[in-house]
Order: sequence, then C-alpha cells, then structure tokens
Amino acid sequence: MIQLDELKSKIMESDGNSLTAYVELFRPFDLANCVEKLDQTEQLKLMGIVPPPISAEILEYLEPVLQYRILYHLDETLASQVLNEMSSDVVADMMLAIHRYQAEKLLNHLPEDYRKKVQTLMTFPEHTAGSLATVDYIAARSSWTIEQTLQHFRKIGHEAEITSYVYVTGHKGELLGVVSLKELILSEPKTQISKIVTQDVIYVPASMEQEEAAELLSRYDLVALPVIDAQNRLIGVITVDDLIDVIREEATEDIQKLGGSQPLTDTYFKSSVFQLYRKRIVWLLVLFVAEAYTGSVLRHYEETLSEVIALAFFIPLLIGTGGNTGTQTVSTLVRALAVGEVHFRDILKVIRKEVTTGLMTGASISLIACMRAWFLGVEWNIGLVVGITCMTIVIWASFVAAILPLILHKLKADPAVISGPFITTLVDGTGLIIYFTIAKIILHL
Amino acid sequence: MIQLDELKSKIMESDGNSLTAYVELFRPFDLANCVEKLDQTEQLKLMGIVPPPISAEILEYLEPVLQYRILYHLDETLASQVLNEMSSDVVADMMLAIHRYQAEKLLNHLPEDYRKKVQTLMTFPEHTAGSLATVDYIAARSSWTIEQTLQHFRKIGHEAEITSYVYVTGHKGELLGVVSLKELILSEPKTQISKIVTQDVIYVPASMEQEEAAELLSRYDLVALPVIDAQNRLIGVITVDDLIDVIREEATEDIQKLGGSQPLTDTYFKSSVFQLYRKRIVWLLVLFVAEAYTGSVLRHYEETLSEVIALAFFIPLLIGTGGNTGTQTVSTLVRALAVGEVHFRDILKVIRKEVTTGLMTGASISLIACMRAWFLGVEWNIGLVVGITCMTIVIWASFVAAILPLILHKLKADPAVISGPFITTLVDGTGLIIYFTIAKIILHL
Repeated sequence: MIQLDELKSKIMESDGNSLTAYVELFRPFDLANCVEKLDQTEQLKLMGIVPPPISAEILEYLEPVLQYRILYHLDETLASQVLNEMSSDVVADMMLAIHRYQAEKLLNHLPEDYRKKVQTLMTFPEHTAGSLATVDYIAARSSWTIEQTLQHFRKIGHEAEITSYVYVTGHKGELLGVVSLKELILSEPKTQISKIVTQDVIYVPASMEQEEAAELLSRYDLVALPVIDAQNRLIGVITVDDLIDVIREEATEDIQKLGGSQPLTDTYFKSSVFQLYRKRIVWLLVLFVAEAYTGSVLRHYEETLSEVIALAFFIPLLIGTGGNTGTQTVSTLVRALAVGEVHFRDILKVIRKEVTTGLMTGASISLIACMRAWFLGVEWNIGLVVGITCMTIVIWASFVAAILPLILHKLKADPAVISGPFITTLVDGTGLIIYFTIAKIILHL
Repeated sequence: MIQLDELKSKIMESDGNSLTAYVELFRPFDLANCVEKLDQTEQLKLMGIVPPPISAEILEYLEPVLQYRILYHLDETLASQVLNEMSSDVVADMMLAIHRYQAEKLLNHLPEDYRKKVQTLMTFPEHTAGSLATVDYIAARSSWTIEQTLQHFRKIGHEAEITSYVYVTGHKGELLGVVSLKELILSEPKTQISKIVTQDVIYVPASMEQEEAAELLSRYDLVALPVIDAQNRLIGVITVDDLIDVIREEATEDIQKLGGSQPLTDTYFKSSVFQLYRKRIVWLLVLFVAEAYTGSVLRHYEETLSEVIALAFFIPLLIGTGGNTGTQTVSTLVRALAVGEVHFRDILKVIRKEVTTGLMTGASISLIACMRAWFLGVEWNIGLVVGITCMTIVIWASFVAAILPLILHKLKADPAVISGPFITTLVDGTGLIIYFTIAKIILHL
C-alpha cells in the first residue's frame, strides 16, 4: 500500500523519472486517496512531473472541486493535456460542479469536437442516464468492412474508454447496432460490418432514471449501456462501473430512508453535523407529532388505567412487539419492491402471505406474553387481555406494513418513506386503542 | 416483450426454422422467464428444436433444479452439447444443487479437461470468490507473441465467456498478468506478449468472501477479477455481472437484518410462509424477552406511576422518539461500515458527531415536547420532566446507536445485527429508567 510520507518525500527529492517509476507502482484509486491529503504545492509538483495520462487517471478519483483547483493552477498546456486524457463523463461532472465562467475557460482547452460532446453531456440533469454517459467510445459506420473498422480502432483506440464494443451508427448518428471486439477479431476482414452487427441492442434514453438503467444492466448482464437522444442518435455510453456506483448509492439511500431519515447527499464523514441534523430532524418531528396522539389515547383511557394500573406495565411490550413486526415486514417488502421482485398487482398474495406469517408469529409471541403476565403476578384476566392484544397487534402490524409500501409504489411515491420508525409510530397509537378496547371488554370496565 | 401464449403456439405448430427465428427475436433472460412457465413437454420440444447455444443461454437463467430436470430428459447427445455451451460457473452451481449421483452422470457428458475444471469449481464453499468463478476465460503463455495469442484467441474465442482480457500464465498455471484485447489489437503482431503484459493485476484468493471481492471490483472499477489458489495458480475468473448480483444480494440481506429479521435465503415469493416465520420469529422472541423488562421497570415505579398517572401518557412518546433516533443513527452507520466509509478507529469521531447531532435534534424535539405537555393540560413540572427526559433519551440513543455497530464490527461480528428493532428495544427499557429517575428528582417523589 502506498504511504503518504513516502510519496511526499519522493515528490520533494524527485528528479522526474524516479517519481514516475514510483507512482506507477500503485493504482490510480490508491494514489488519489493520497494525493487528496497532499498540500497544493505538492499536488502541483506531482502533476507537473508524472505523464499526463497518469495525472488524468488520478484526477478522475478526486472530488470535482479539487480536480478544478489542481487543473486551474497547472501550466495551461499541461492542463489541457491532462483534461484531454480524462473521461468525458468525469469532465462533464467537474464542469457542472464549478462556476459557469470557470467551466467555460476550461472548456476552451478542449478540441472543438470533443468540447461540443462534453457540453451535450452537461445538459442532462443529475440522476439521469445521460448524466452518466461518456463519449469516449468507438463508433463505426455500417458501410465499413471489418478491416476498416479495425483500422479505425487502431487509430483512436488509445483514447477510448470503452473498447470491448464498437457502436455502429448511421448517417445522422443514429444507433444501428453493436459489434463486440471479439466478433471483429473472429470474423473475416473483408466482411461488411453490417453483416455481423447485433441490431437488437439494449439502449436507454438519456432522460431515463439512473436507477432504471442500472436495473436493465443488471437484468441482462451487460457491461456497457448506450444512451440515445430523442432522435435515436447515440450520444454516449454508460460503463458498468458507473452503474455499480448507482446500485450501491441507491441501496445506501434506501437503508437510510428505511431507518427513518432523509438520505445523505454525501458520505458519512463528508456530511457535516448540521447536514445530519437537517436530514434527521424532519422525520423525527413528523413522527413525534404523530406519536403525540398516543398521549391523547392514554388520556382518553385515564380512568381505565387508574383502575387497573397493571395495564400500564405492558404498554411498551405490546406496542414494541407490534413495531418490531411491522419493521420486519416493511423492510422486506420495500427491498423486494426496489429490486422488482414484488409489484402492486401482487397485493392480495402479499397480504395473504404476511397475515398468515403474522398469525404464526403472533400465536408464538402470545404464548410467551401470557407466561410473562403470569410471572409478573398480575391477575389471570389481565394475562388474557395481554395475550389476545399481542396476537391482534402482530396481525394488525403485518397487515398495515404489507399494504402501505405497495400502495405508495402504486402511487409512484417512494415506498422507502414507510420506514421502520414510521410503521412503529403508526402501530404505537393504533395498538394502544386495540389494547384498551380488548381490556375494557374482557375486564368489564 | 415475449408473450407466453404466442411462444406456446409457436412451439406447437413449429417446423423448426420459424421457431428458431421467433426465439432469436428475444433475449435469453426474457425467454427464460417464459420457459419457466411452460409445461415439461413444451420445454423439451423447444430445446429439441432451437440450436444448443440458444438453449444453453436460456438454461443459464433458470433455477438449478429446473436446469437439471430439462437436461435429464433431453436426448443424451443434445444434453451434452447444451451442457458444453453453458458457463462453467452455472454448470458447477447446478451440479452442487442436485444429487451427487445425478451430478456424476451429467459430468460424464463433459470433455475430460473441462470436467476437471468444473469439478475444481465445485469444491469452493458458497459465498466465496471461488464459487463465483468461471473457467471459460482465455489464457496465453508469456512466451507467445501477439500474433500467436490472437491465433489462439480465434481458435477458442467462440467458446469463451470472458473475451475482453487474456490471462497470461506460467508453466505451472500461475498467474503472471493480464492483457486486454484492445492492447493485443493495438500492438505489433511480432511483439512478445511479456512485453505488454500488465503484471500488477488485481486478483483474489478462491477462499475470499464474495462480499470482499465485490468491494475490490467496485473500488478499482474492474470488469473481471481473476481467482487464484494457494499455489498462485489461476483457477478461474469472476465476471462483473456475478459481482453485481453479490452487491445487490448483500444490500438486500443488510436491509432485512436492519429490519430485525434474519435474511431470507430466497426471493420474497419463493420463500414459504414457514420460512418467513422462521426468519422472523427468532429476533421477535429475543426482542420480546428483552422488552419484557420494561414491565419490571414499570412495576418498580408502580407507586410513582399511581401517584402521578399523567406520567404514563408520555411513555410511548418518549421511548418512541428514543427508538426513532437510534434507528436513524444505526442504519446510517451500519451502511457506512458495510461500504467501508467508517472503521472502528473512527469511533471517537463518530461519537462526537452523533452526540452533537443528538444535542441538536434533542433540543428541537424537547421544545415541542414541552409544548405538547402544556397542550395536554398536565402540570408545568411534568412538562419540565418530559422536556428534560426527551433531551436525555435522544442523546443516550444517539450514543448507544453510534458505538454498538462499531464495536460489533471490531469483533468481526455483523454490525447489521444491531437492527432498528434491537436499538428500539434497548432504548425502551433504559429510557424508562431515565424518565422515572428524572421524574422522581424533579417531582420530589
């Protein structure tokens, strides 16, 4: 593993060749982690010495603002060399993160043709397929032979990011199909490319949600996903590593939402305390206000409660168990919805499954609940109330937690809004009503 | 999209060519979804007509047991053709899913060399890197020239699954490096392959946890990951699509665990009610027993409670808010640990961050809590008790939820065991003690 101190001293003493040789021992990702921690003088010295392709690879793993800060301070010729070596999707992201005026100045470093492509990429809103696309792919005309295509490949292959596939386009740039590099090598050089092209290629419109694109990629086991505009023209290709990031980020967001907070926009340590506060307080307050009605419920049953104070002993236990059951169901279903295993049309099947499971878990827990009441030494009829309530609350929680995420999904809202804390809060209040209603009936209060 | 009825009628009326042409219109994944729903006669008729490579692609998306059932009933020559076309990792998984005697019979359909490789793959335990590897890659000797390597590629490229890279191995099969197909094409044919090989290749031992392999792949933006044995010999390569499945499955498991149940081994609809019951009841019972001590706490404070029955009104509200806060913190941290953003060494930083956030959310909520007490019309000093308790419980929950996942991670246990329901239960009991202690002090009981 690369050591920060070692890199620092290599930079200070370096004669050029030895620094490059040293840097080449490590991977761009690990180097970037170190470069982040250097001071600016060191960063600039490093980038001034190692070859532009290596600088570009390191830069790609840094935050956009840091990328810009380094490029801005580099010698202009060098900066434009490095910029040209970077992936177009990374360049576009950086341009969007910095000031418009700064971006324009930097864009002038790019060759006109490339600049226009990057500017197109910059027009796509965040979280869409278009915003993930790179233009560093290789395109061929359908009239070319395999030999011509391979010649073209040899000419521009060095600069391309996506090289396992060649995209075949028509006169207006419309996507006609795809040929793998393997097929190019296995076919006769004189064959026309249109003879071996796979026309039935899976592509996505630039406006598609990135989540949906990731779903397609994973369903069909693809490694690259072409992106087209409204006129069917190929505007870029998404690489699998970017979609892996999407899959991981979406899972992180869902986990945070299910935990009852709004998802963080940054990593944990990069989020400030104030950001954490802001993302959490909204739901905490909403749930607090919702939970507050448990106070009104209890106040309504104040008389019952003061008559049989023992009923209070079981309040946390009963509503807690309901909340736990609901959280189990909700998290299973929200995830099943997110990965496309469950749909709204399955609602009856889901209800049947969850309520049956609730019946079984409820029965088991009720048994223990009666025993617990017996151990606490309360009267037998209170034990009966606790047992029946337990059963009812578990089934109720299963039912509510089964239907709410499905309904939200149907309404095109995010099912993960129905978080563990949400369902717990909902079951708390309704559970108390169930509890006291059963108590009043059985204890004749 | 393919229609089941249409496929059925095409199979029944088919003359061979037209069925193949029809099937070629669709993707293996979508075909497999349909084939699953055909009856066996139809499945066998279809596989008997379409060419073996297509049958193999469809089979790869089916469940192992169904794969076997179809292969078993196919004509023996055809079965062995199809089997040979399937990915070796899929074949190995199927062999492991069926009876040993059945597997041996099927293995005899494979050429000896290939059979041995598949048998090696079968020795790796589930959830390890080895169990995901395929042997359908292309290997070259370091003494070969580019030209020789490309010749070899042309000979066996049709059967390989991984074709974007060629793996360079030594005399004993040890992994020496990797060359991309792009580099092969861009280099001079007479060059020796050892001149252009990337020696510093990222590989994993067969025994590595699949989760860790997925982490490596995603960190370094790879599309294939070579797997080696203890003697450094290349035994297979993992493709990116298999690791995407791992990433998605691990996220699903973590979400289910955070929801307070053991993870399902199957998809939602494939899990029976009894399986759901078994995965959920364990934690429900553990938590129920843990929660039961809230009863003892309340019983201990029975006198206080009957003196000031209004204290009971706020029980669900206060412990609910503590549980919500804890759930928010736990889910954020468990995920941050899973993706490697947070480590045990950061524990002080995490505590500071969470407790400060807890101070801020606690202060906001306390304010509302006092107002709520005022609205419920209880005495002012009870309002004071509620406000102070609220603040204390929120900070307490933040603290506990911050340290527990980190400690579990340090002990090499799964932090996701600290689920939302777990932390809620923990905070419920301790929260009550905090509540009544504060009440006794302030109300002089």
